[in-house]
Amino acid sequence: MSLSSQLSVSGAIDLSTYDSRATPGFDGNKADAKLALKDLGDELSDLQERLFAGGRTGAGTTRLLVVLQGMDTAGKGGIVRHVAGLADPQGLSITSFKKPTRAELRHDFLWRVRKALPAPGMIGIFDRSYYEDVLIGRVRELAPPEEIERRYDAINAFEQEFTGSGGVLVKCFLRITKDDQKERLAARLDDPTKYWKYNPGDLDERELWDGYQEAYAIAIERCGEAAPWHLVPSGGKWYRNWAVATLLLEQLRALELQWPAPDFDVEAEKKRLAAM
Amino acid sequence: MSLSSQLSVSGAIDLSTYDSRATPGFDGNKADAKLALKDLGDELSDLQERLFAGGRTGAGTTRLLVVLQGMDTAGKGGIVRHVAGLADPQGLSITSFKKPTRAELRHDFLWRVRKALPAPGMIGIFDRSYYEDVLIGRVRELAPPEEIERRYDAINAFEQEFTGSGGVLVKCFLRITKDDQKERLAARLDDPTKYWKYNPGDLDERELWDGYQEAYAIAIERCGEAAPWHLVPSGGKWYRNWAVATLLLEQLRALELQWPAPDFDVEAEKKRLAAM
Repeated sequence: MSLSSQLSVSGAIDLSTYDSRATPGFDGNKADAKLALKDLGDELSDLQERLFAGGRTGAGTTRLLVVLQGMDTAGKGGIVRHVAGLADPQGLSITSFKKPTRAELRHDFLWRVRKALPAPGMIGIFDRSYYEDVLIGRVRELAPPEEIERRYDAINAFEQEFTGSGGVLVKCFLRITKDDQKERLAARLDDPTKYWKYNPGDLDERELWDGYQEAYAIAIERCGEAAPWHLVPSGGKWYRNWAVATLLLEQLRALELQWPAPDFDVEAEKKRLAAM
Repeated sequence: MSLSSQLSVSGAIDLSTYDSRATPGFDGNKADAKLALKDLGDELSDLQERLFAGGRTGAGTTRLLVVLQGMDTAGKGGIVRHVAGLADPQGLSITSFKKPTRAELRHDFLWRVRKALPAPGMIGIFDRSYYEDVLIGRVRELAPPEEIERRYDAINAFEQEFTGSGGVLVKCFLRITKDDQKERLAARLDDPTKYWKYNPGDLDERELWDGYQEAYAIAIERCGEAAPWHLVPSGGKWYRNWAVATLLLEQLRALELQWPAPDFDVEAEKKRLAAM
C-alpha cells in the first residue's frame, strides 16, 4: 500500500487528537530513516533529471508542486533543506509565501500563486501557499466571510486547472501538537543561532491554535477534489522528512518518465563531430 | 595562499594553451576530492545559514553571486548540481541565461540581469550571464562593434555597483580544451540518457572555438576591476567542483558572518511562552 494512501484523508476529519510521533509506513528508527532518505535521494535525483529533461526539450508538460502547510515550527523549512535538498537545485523552484504585499493585495489571492507555479520539468515547493488565505484569512478575519467562502471553490477550480494541464500536486499538512510547538519555540529561544527563526508574532498565532486547527479541518474537507491532502505526523523530524520524500517519489514513479527522444539525427551529428 | 589568488587572473592573458587537468591548490586524487567536497559542504551549509539569517531578519545586505561561464560541456550544470546542491535550496537563486527573448531584447542587456540578482542573504548562481553579451554577442556580431565596446564599461560599472552595495561576486571561467569538449559531446551522442543535453547548435558554436577564446580573453582583460576572474581547470569534473566550492567558501569565510542579534526581548518571550 502506498504511503500516499496511508496518509491521505478526505471528508470531515477531527484534528483535535492525534499522535504526532506516529510513523505510518515506516518500520525503523531515526538512523534507519536517515539511511532510507539517502537512498530515496538517489532515485529522486534520477527521476527528477528525466522530468527536467522533458521540460528542457519541450517534450513534456509535466510539473510537480509540493504544497507545505503546517503551524509554526512544523518543519516547512526543514523539508526544503532536507528533502528538496536531495534534488538538483536547477530543477527546483521554491516559493515562500509571506504576508501579501500591498501590490499583491490589490489582486485576487491566486494572482501571486499563478506567477509562482513551476514550469514544465520543474519541481515547485510552496512553503505556505494559497491555503493561508483560508487559514490565517479565516482565523483573523482578514476578508469578509463570503470572500472566504468563495475561496474554497476558487482553490478547487485552480487545483483542477493545474492537475488538468500536466501538473501533479502533493499537498502535505505537517502535523505537530501544541506541546511539540512549545518545545520547539523554547528551543529557538534557548539558542542564539536560532533567534532569527523566532518572531514574537509566533506566540500571537499560537494563542489561536484551536481556531487554526478548525480552519485546517475545513480546508482539508472542502479542498480535496483535485488532489488529496496528506496528514504527515511531524513530531519526529526524521519521519517527516522520509514521509514527504516518499510522497514525492511515489508521484514521480507513477509518471513513468522516459528520457526524451532526440530531435536530431544522432548518426549525422556523430559524423559531423568526428570531423571537427 | 588562498585558492582565489591561485586561480585569479588580471591583465592580458593567453588562453591558447593550458592544461585543463591541472589541479592547483589540491593535492590528492578524485576520491580525496569527493571527500573534501563533502566536508566543504558542511561548512558551506553552516555559513550559508548565517548569511540567510541576516537577510531574513533584515540585518544584512550581504549577498553572493557566482557567475559561471564556459564553453558548452564545461560543466556549468554540473556545478549547479554538485556545488550549489551542497547548500540549502531555500537560500539559492539560480538563473540560467538563455538566448534573450524578444521582450528582453527591447531592453538594455543588463535589464534581465538586474531582475535576477540575489536578494540579501541569498546565494545567486548565474549559469551563463551578462558576459554572453560580449562573448556570443561579439563572436556572432549580434550587436554593432560600438555597442559591444560600450558593454565592457557597462559591465564594469554594473559590477562596481553590485560589489559596492553588499554584493560579493565570484566569477569563474570553467576552462576545458577543444579535445575535452569533443570527448564530452561524443559521450552525449553515445548515451540516450544524455541526448537531451545535446543540441546541434553546439557544433556551430564549436566551429567558432578560437573566436570564443579570443572573446573570453578580451572580456577577462577588460572586466576585472570590481572582482577578479578565476580560471578553473575543468577537464576533471572532481577538481572543478572542489575548486568552485572552495572559491565560494573562501568568500563566505571572509565575511565573518555573525548570527543576527535578537530584535525582541528573549527573557520576556520565554516567560510568555511558558505561560501558554
